[in-house]
Amino acid sequence: MFKNCLENVRGRIPLIHNITNYVTVNDVANVILACGGSPIMSDEAEDVEDITSLCGGLNINIGTLHKTSIEGIFRAGRRANELGHPIVLDPVGAGASEFRTDTALSLMKDLRLSAVRGNISEIRTLAGDRGNTKGVDADIADAVTEDTLDEAVAFVKAFSRKAGCIIAVTGAVDLVSDGISCFVIRNGRPEMGKITGTGCQLSGIMTAYLTANPDSPLEAAAASVCMMGLAGEIGWSRMQKGDGNATYRNRIIDAVYNMTGEELEKGAKYELR
Amino acid sequence: MFKNCLENVRGRIPLIHNITNYVTVNDVANVILACGGSPIMSDEAEDVEDITSLCGGLNINIGTLHKTSIEGIFRAGRRANELGHPIVLDPVGAGASEFRTDTALSLMKDLRLSAVRGNISEIRTLAGDRGNTKGVDADIADAVTEDTLDEAVAFVKAFSRKAGCIIAVTGAVDLVSDGISCFVIRNGRPEMGKITGTGCQLSGIMTAYLTANPDSPLEAAAASVCMMGLAGEIGWSRMQKGDGNATYRNRIIDAVYNMTGEELEKGAKYELR
Amino acid sequence: MFKNCLENVRGRIPLIHNITNYVTVNDVANVILACGGSPIMSDEAEDVEDITSLCGGLNINIGTLHKTSIEGIFRAGRRANELGHPIVLDPVGAGASEFRTDTALSLMKDLRLSAVRGNISEIRTLAGDRGNTKGVDADIADAVTEDTLDEAVAFVKAFSRKAGCIIAVTGAVDLVSDGISCFVIRNGRPEMGKITGTGCQLSGIMTAYLTANPDSPLEAAAASVCMMGLAGEIGWSRMQKGDGNATYRNRIIDAVYNMTGEELEKGAKYELR
Repeated sequence: MFKNCLENVRGRIPLIHNITNYVTVNDVANVILACGGSPIMSDEAEDVEDITSLCGGLNINIGTLHKTSIEGIFRAGRRANELGHPIVLDPVGAGASEFRTDTALSLMKDLRLSAVRGNISEIRTLAGDRGNTKGVDADIADAVTEDTLDEAVAFVKAFSRKAGCIIAVTGAVDLVSDGISCFVIRNGRPEMGKITGTGCQLSGIMTAYLTANPDSPLEAAAASVCMMGLAGEIGWSRMQKGDGNATYRNRIIDAVYNMTGEELEKGAKYELR
Repeated sequence: MFKNCLENVRGRIPLIHNITNYVTVNDVANVILACGGSPIMSDEAEDVEDITSLCGGLNINIGTLHKTSIEGIFRAGRRANELGHPIVLDPVGAGASEFRTDTALSLMKDLRLSAVRGNISEIRTLAGDRGNTKGVDADIADAVTEDTLDEAVAFVKAFSRKAGCIIAVTGAVDLVSDGISCFVIRNGRPEMGKITGTGCQLSGIMTAYLTANPDSPLEAAAASVCMMGLAGEIGWSRMQKGDGNATYRNRIIDAVYNMTGEELEKGAKYELR
Repeated sequence: MFKNCLENVRGRIPLIHNITNYVTVNDVANVILACGGSPIMSDEAEDVEDITSLCGGLNINIGTLHKTSIEGIFRAGRRANELGHPIVLDPVGAGASEFRTDTALSLMKDLRLSAVRGNISEIRTLAGDRGNTKGVDADIADAVTEDTLDEAVAFVKAFSRKAGCIIAVTGAVDLVSDGISCFVIRNGRPEMGKITGTGCQLSGIMTAYLTANPDSPLEAAAASVCMMGLAGEIGWSRMQKGDGNATYRNRIIDAVYNMTGEELEKGAKYELR
């Protein structure tokens, strides 16, 4: 199943419009290329409608949100909705500032999103639940662990139904739900948290997967989460003495680049609840 | 000939003002340093005239063009023209949106450019010819191949004469013409297309070459194209099992850093038509 | 002493708010993670006060300053001052344009800074002394060498007293003074100048050190300078044939990631004047 999802990305080369932050944008572009998609970045209001019209999917990331780019995000989002393109929202820092929280909530209200991907604190903030965002990282009090898993799965399913889109919560354990089923994913390495932007990269990959697999969005989203986590495992296995987070960053993108559908199928660690 | 061009860059350390996109800007800065130049980035209208006055050349790249940065581009460009500095335009995504196409055409009309470097779809768009830009990549229908080479050379020569500047079209085969002669260059690797920004990097290098070689602009531009392609070949030869596009990106910049004039002279694959 | 400074960063994981340039921002984020801190980037005026309130320190870098971001810088700075957070200013390109010089001087006047870190030309410009900024690099005429060391130490001490904050001048020899004492630091490699943003990275690290070591700011600032230089030495020792500035960049961040307090203590090369 996941094998097909990846092969569809590599075969269809989806063109992805990214309105993303300037911190991790280069890695997002390279990882979209690595997984088989083709990225374009554009956040100027005058530019985004033409660009989105050329593309197949839209990735919105508010990591360095500017007041002046909000119009561009909405114009791109509305056009993507008109064209039936999948939209992924990465609500970076929702809960860390009113500005980010309010913008993310408006986007969820006014656009028809395919998926929202964030850490547990960001997602709890958007759900109006407790949510203790610590900057751009999840608060430890919110963490999804084996102990809190049942409650977290129930929460993600319920929020997915309410939001009307896939909700993907990533952390030590990842949860991806369409409101009915929930993938519980155990790929990845804790050291990925020492690299800026692995979450942003995943949102880019997820947009490519959703775009190339229109008929199975839940599987596509889950496959992208497994791919990123598995790439983190493969990249880590190639680390040598003296290597650190900069080299690890490159090795993860390299692992995405080289991963085959079969390797993804075989390496994905998940259960369906 | 190309040997001298590179040695002039390394000896003169041209200071290059870059108004470029936020996707690939870090790689552009590092590759300009790698080839022997010194980069500065500034796109604020209040800042650009002072910065350009300190520099020797100007690199304009519209990859993430904003309405608010257009004034800065024009102010920098006019000052560079007053000072006789070479200007390179990289019309990223011309043809992909009206906003980009119109801005690129205005820049070509209002500024005296030294060179325009783009993929074949972008360049055909600017020439008012057919041009099927697919996002930021060339459309396959436009590709310069051995079969279409004669026509493409004639087109590039004619457009160079009309535009009054060097036109550099990069792809599987690269063409660099001043309207009279045309370098047909066969360096490079197809895998370079899996890295974001190799074109942006080349435009930065080209600006450094043009600035350090004021008396032989066509040779300087062609030498920079050969350098980037040859670096792609050398970088590829150092790839190891498990490496992908992230590592390849680093190896290409490393190869630029280590290339000598003699290696460039020896490795450059071109004919003059 | 330096051992404790680093261990405090790793133990306290200071959250650092960065308003920085888009050229080197990704490396700044990764190096803050590497040294043990946690970075957030935000420059939107509507966003910065909430973000700074969550954080422990503020890193201001004017490398790609925009008129529209100045309000955000001041709002963040005033809030950081209210909260008693350390602020580091990196006046990239002060002296290269009136816009940058004026903004840096206003920031020094209106905010209570903990430290200003720049190259000698930038710092001389801010001191109203001669200062021959050559773009974003120091002019060779200004360089701090063994011959000019006594004068340079006296200058940095005097400017530190006048400015009321730590002044850190980095170059072949680094000087860090609180107006009374001056650390003279001889870590580092000249090849670090061939990588864009090692100065920006240091300013990020310095902010993390100052935030995690509120009781010994001079030692903390000096320790961060030694760490960056020592990482440059360690990274260089791992370079292999064919490696260049792109790989060197990664190896320096990797070296920061792996450095222990004891290694820093042992590898730091400094005298106190």
